[in-house]
Amino acid sequence: MTQWFFILADSELELIPKEIVNERSILNNARARGKAPEKLLLDASHHHPAFARLPDSERRGRPDIVHFFLMLCIDSDLSLEGKLHAFVHTRNNDVIAVKPETRLPPHYPRFVGLIESLYEQRVVPSRENALLELRNEVPLEVLVKALKPDEVLVLTPAELQTPLLEIFAPLKDVERVVVIIGGFSKGDFRSDLSKFKHTKVSLGPRLQKVWTVTYKLFSAIQYAGKAPEAKVKDAGKAPEAKVKDAGKTPEEKVKATKPSKPRRAPKKKEE
Amino acid sequence: MTQWFFILADSELELIPKEIVNERSILNNARARGKAPEKLLLDASHHHPAFARLPDSERRGRPDIVHFFLMLCIDSDLSLEGKLHAFVHTRNNDVIAVKPETRLPPHYPRFVGLIESLYEQRVVPSRENALLELRNEVPLEVLVKALKPDEVLVLTPAELQTPLLEIFAPLKDVERVVVIIGGFSKGDFRSDLSKFKHTKVSLGPRLQKVWTVTYKLFSAIQYAGKAPEAKVKDAGKAPEAKVKDAGKTPEEKVKATKPSKPRRAPKKKEE
Repeated sequence: MTQWFFILADSELELIPKEIVNERSILNNARARGKAPEKLLLDASHHHPAFARLPDSERRGRPDIVHFFLMLCIDSDLSLEGKLHAFVHTRNNDVIAVKPETRLPPHYPRFVGLIESLYEQRVVPSRENALLELRNEVPLEVLVKALKPDEVLVLTPAELQTPLLEIFAPLKDVERVVVIIGGFSKGDFRSDLSKFKHTKVSLGPRLQKVWTVTYKLFSAIQYAGKAPEAKVKDAGKAPEAKVKDAGKTPEEKVKATKPSKPRRAPKKKEE
Repeated sequence: MTQWFFILADSELELIPKEIVNERSILNNARARGKAPEKLLLDASHHHPAFARLPDSERRGRPDIVHFFLMLCIDSDLSLEGKLHAFVHTRNNDVIAVKPETRLPPHYPRFVGLIESLYEQRVVPSRENALLELRNEVPLEVLVKALKPDEVLVLTPAELQTPLLEIFAPLKDVERVVVIIGGFSKGDFRSDLSKFKHTKVSLGPRLQKVWTVTYKLFSAIQYAGKAPEAKVKDAGKAPEAKVKDAGKTPEEKVKATKPSKPRRAPKKKEE
């Protein structure tokens, strides 16, 4: 049974940086929320007037992206089957590990409050019941290596779309797969991807929203796991691609469509 | 080319109802936001203390669900190809039509502000450029009939999961398909579904989040559109199902995987 480790990498989640902690829009927001300004999450919408003084200002302060990503993860079939482990890695190399049984507030301001508590307490709701846990100074490559993956996929836009089912079908016999999605709306990964072996996967040239990327992967895993591999590989191709099987006897054909060895994995649900 | 009309039906989006407009939590929130209380969207998180006096209080005030739904819609491939039209229908029979080229704020508080403006102005950003348009007193069946659908699907949980690819594969030759998803987190549709002909579609017994339902449909449409129907129909079945082809010659086999003729008909109503 494959375990999937989805990492939202270089995501734009951070507390208010020191250099803008005394800006008026920050102080006003802190007062309104009854919190110290340095304990607030940076938010591009609320704190935009203060952003001029921040490097990389066009991409920073996007807890909303993290929120969407996690909401999709925790309600996914994969997560409910105990096969999905979600991690948020940030621009400052903070890492938030999210237990599959976690329930998160769908209401954005509450989610922000929860992550702010996490930054204060390191674990929420409690040390004994660490549904969310925060670690600092964990560069992406350290996190990836700690997960001991058999395979690492990195999502990145490219002219040619990767045939997803071809990538995902063989992975159902692999034990640990890390999937890395960029947690930012603009620009590129800040982490050095050359520090670990990985396969690039592209959903095409369009820079798609994190939520779109995330669900397309869930669906690819689902559809790749459903159909016998031989058929799945063809799914994106024209019917003619099947001709390569034409020399086989019907019996061989039937055999070829069966999985070649027992799969334990409790697939489906489905139907 | 199929046009898809996704309706989030009976969604829990409404202005603060008259009967609680003077509750303390509402007045405080209105003051903090600098708006008249009756112009605010009802929000279960912000206004919960006032909910005791509302009927159906356990499900009301969920603009966050509408937000997630629309964010998924507008970044979908279908929408970018001009084939998706998203509508929000509410518990009070308000209907919001969303143009495919609309960009919406990913930041929840801004989204709420936008919908509040829509309730004041009826169209945003302007009459000449009506990206979002609000109509009142449009019951679900009126909206459905106005869209002149060839087929109507209603998502509803049931013990048995509908084989999605079997439902969606033939629809690619249908012109107008309405898909109805319940925009609430608890309970059932309030609208009378018996007033229009429809096919029930189930993703299984678990009550899945609106965002999960929405992306599973996008993916089903995508995967159903990709593979030739003959193969697609088998995708959810066990490999043995292919044995029925075993008597054919390889040539017949190859032929059988091609779509045999233009298909119009959406088969089957009411499973």
